[in-house]
Amino acid sequence: MTPPIELAAPAMTDFATTKSLFELPEGIIYLDGNSLGPPPKAVAQRLSDVLRHEWGRMLITGWNGAGWMAQPSYVGDRIARLIGATPGHVMVGDTLSVQVYQALAAALGMRPGRKVILSDSGNFPSDLYIAEGLINTLDRDYELRVVAPQDIEAQITSEVAVALLTEVDYRSARMHDMQRVTEKAHAVGALTIWDLAHSAGAIEVDLSKAKADFAVGCTYKYLNGGPGAPGFVYVAPPHIETVQPALTGWLGHAAPFAFEPSYRAGTGIERMRVGTPPVLALAALEAALDIWDHTSMADVRACSIALTEQFITELEARCPMLQLASPRDPMQRGSQVSFQFDQGYAAIQACIAGGVIGDFRAPDLMRFGFTPLYIDAGDVTAAVEVIAEVMVHRLWDLDAFKARAHVT
Amino acid sequence: MTPPIELAAPAMTDFATTKSLFELPEGIIYLDGNSLGPPPKAVAQRLSDVLRHEWGRMLITGWNGAGWMAQPSYVGDRIARLIGATPGHVMVGDTLSVQVYQALAAALGMRPGRKVILSDSGNFPSDLYIAEGLINTLDRDYELRVVAPQDIEAQITSEVAVALLTEVDYRSARMHDMQRVTEKAHAVGALTIWDLAHSAGAIEVDLSKAKADFAVGCTYKYLNGGPGAPGFVYVAPPHIETVQPALTGWLGHAAPFAFEPSYRAGTGIERMRVGTPPVLALAALEAALDIWDHTSMADVRACSIALTEQFITELEARCPMLQLASPRDPMQRGSQVSFQFDQGYAAIQACIAGGVIGDFRAPDLMRFGFTPLYIDAGDVTAAVEVIAEVMVHRLWDLDAFKARAHVT
Repeated sequence: MTPPIELAAPAMTDFATTKSLFELPEGIIYLDGNSLGPPPKAVAQRLSDVLRHEWGRMLITGWNGAGWMAQPSYVGDRIARLIGATPGHVMVGDTLSVQVYQALAAALGMRPGRKVILSDSGNFPSDLYIAEGLINTLDRDYELRVVAPQDIEAQITSEVAVALLTEVDYRSARMHDMQRVTEKAHAVGALTIWDLAHSAGAIEVDLSKAKADFAVGCTYKYLNGGPGAPGFVYVAPPHIETVQPALTGWLGHAAPFAFEPSYRAGTGIERMRVGTPPVLALAALEAALDIWDHTSMADVRACSIALTEQFITELEARCPMLQLASPRDPMQRGSQVSFQFDQGYAAIQACIAGGVIGDFRAPDLMRFGFTPLYIDAGDVTAAVEVIAEVMVHRLWDLDAFKARAHVT
Repeated sequence: MTPPIELAAPAMTDFATTKSLFELPEGIIYLDGNSLGPPPKAVAQRLSDVLRHEWGRMLITGWNGAGWMAQPSYVGDRIARLIGATPGHVMVGDTLSVQVYQALAAALGMRPGRKVILSDSGNFPSDLYIAEGLINTLDRDYELRVVAPQDIEAQITSEVAVALLTEVDYRSARMHDMQRVTEKAHAVGALTIWDLAHSAGAIEVDLSKAKADFAVGCTYKYLNGGPGAPGFVYVAPPHIETVQPALTGWLGHAAPFAFEPSYRAGTGIERMRVGTPPVLALAALEAALDIWDHTSMADVRACSIALTEQFITELEARCPMLQLASPRDPMQRGSQVSFQFDQGYAAIQACIAGGVIGDFRAPDLMRFGFTPLYIDAGDVTAAVEVIAEVMVHRLWDLDAFKARAHVT
């Protein structure tokens, strides 16, 4: 665990520098950082140091000597800065799905008379599945009420215990207005849980200003922590000393090493801890987060909007067969762009074969993520060239390809 | 992900070879592998390969291309061999505490009419805390009934839904008889969950023969997966197609990438998955598990008993002030030895200063773990020398030290 790099106050984010801090394979334009970020160069060295100088040399004494025990809240504070949270309110660990369970069970416990969990059909399915699993565990008359995203605000009634929403839709990048929805929820006594999977590191988030009650997120997308990097949970100041977690593991105990027979919740965000922290994964994530010390989220968002606008303009000019499936207004859109196309799966495979990595989301979405830390305007133009070639010449279509080969 | 090393059928485990496969700091005798195993040498190379050739080169395509998605059950099968489980019944991921929750909620769901979770005061506190948290979440009239370890068998009545027990006591190394307790439980219609934290890689476990219903464990102790390495869960064959997990994350879904709106449990052990697998941690664990391909658990157990017997005999001959707190019968004892001593905390600190790393467990236990993969008889004798020097000359006691300095 090393402290963040000390920098002079940055005038403006230097994206050429941030790009140089990533390992990017030659000949590839990577537009899938919204699914899995690429490795920051510093991760290899950090992991090697942890293996050699911490685990290898300190062994068990590394828990205190190398600061492993403090990692979950220390790394949480570094994420807090990116999502508008005050220090001491974010805990890193477990997976995003487990954090959804932890936040949802806690929120329901705070609204015992209410039986409705409100969500929308644009939520990531795992959040909905976790809510179903929790309801089945509770074995009570809870209802998971899933409505269309545009109906969320109208559906926040006094029946609702908690609104469980993903801020940026994983398919379309459509954004909810976190502040407005939260205000609406609070006006009727409901709580909010915001899933920031496609927000953290992608858009400007201000949990404090929006007065969000809980938030959860993952670190392997825009934060580049590596495949399966840990999730995080945020608890707002008004709840942090009273929230009752469902997953009451020993490291959330007020005195874990006293080995007391009964659970006593730790202070503040510490109580949201569960088991032993994943030290190697947290070390990789820490190295990845160093890059963010060189940035401002306002710069990142401005650059992201410029890149997505450029991509839409250039691609639509070349490919009339593609239907934009993301909001056209950049203020309503996260950091990815999706196009609807009937044969999207095959077309994405052809793009990947051509060196542009995007991905496909059923039933018919071609999805491309824009990550200013390592994608620039030149990459966008080059990507559009490849995608347009694929689309215009139907390169995913063997018959079309053969026909064209005969003609030329 | 690489397949296990191919070996000719080993006649007998070569512990000199296994020792050579670990990074062990010079001048240290490490008797705390029961808390955190040291790094196997192969871990550094494996992590470097995953970073460079998988994450760095394959990026998002690594989920299938590098087999990351299959890691949790693939690595689970490698652990299965060490705990007497059939392939397809062990899933690796999350923390041990989360796996306790997952197994306990599932077990309670299978015994809806029963309200008692039976455990004992020798269980690791996190298991008890997790049971408390689950009961509070359920908000029903469940009871966590904690009895003395020796009373467990008598207390398994038809009120009991599930007995949640750690096989090897983390303080004393006292062992439960898994098979007898499980038989007793089944005779009255109760289920068993066995926490193998101090069993897996330490003693011979045969979950199939004992007919255990569920088991959970961690991989950072005797399995040397690294600090905070993931936990695992075992579900017995009779339950594996009907068990209903509480944590129903997307990767436990029958078709995770169909992004269906409702949860459908995956087949077999797959349904016990929750979120995205921790790829870096699983890669480190895989490299650590390669060493076990060179061993038989019968050899490991026989060597462990020889080492603990030697340690007790040699240390008791030198240090009459130490009271053995572990069972004297090696068949009743796991792979660690604890001694009771009033000033145990200070004494352990002096041992560590002298190069012998053990640990302390409140209120007065000095605990030493024996791990045949990298600890041999010469280490035991050398450790006894240091501990005896500390104890006989009261090296933790500044006053005694000063008095002695004046005399000599």
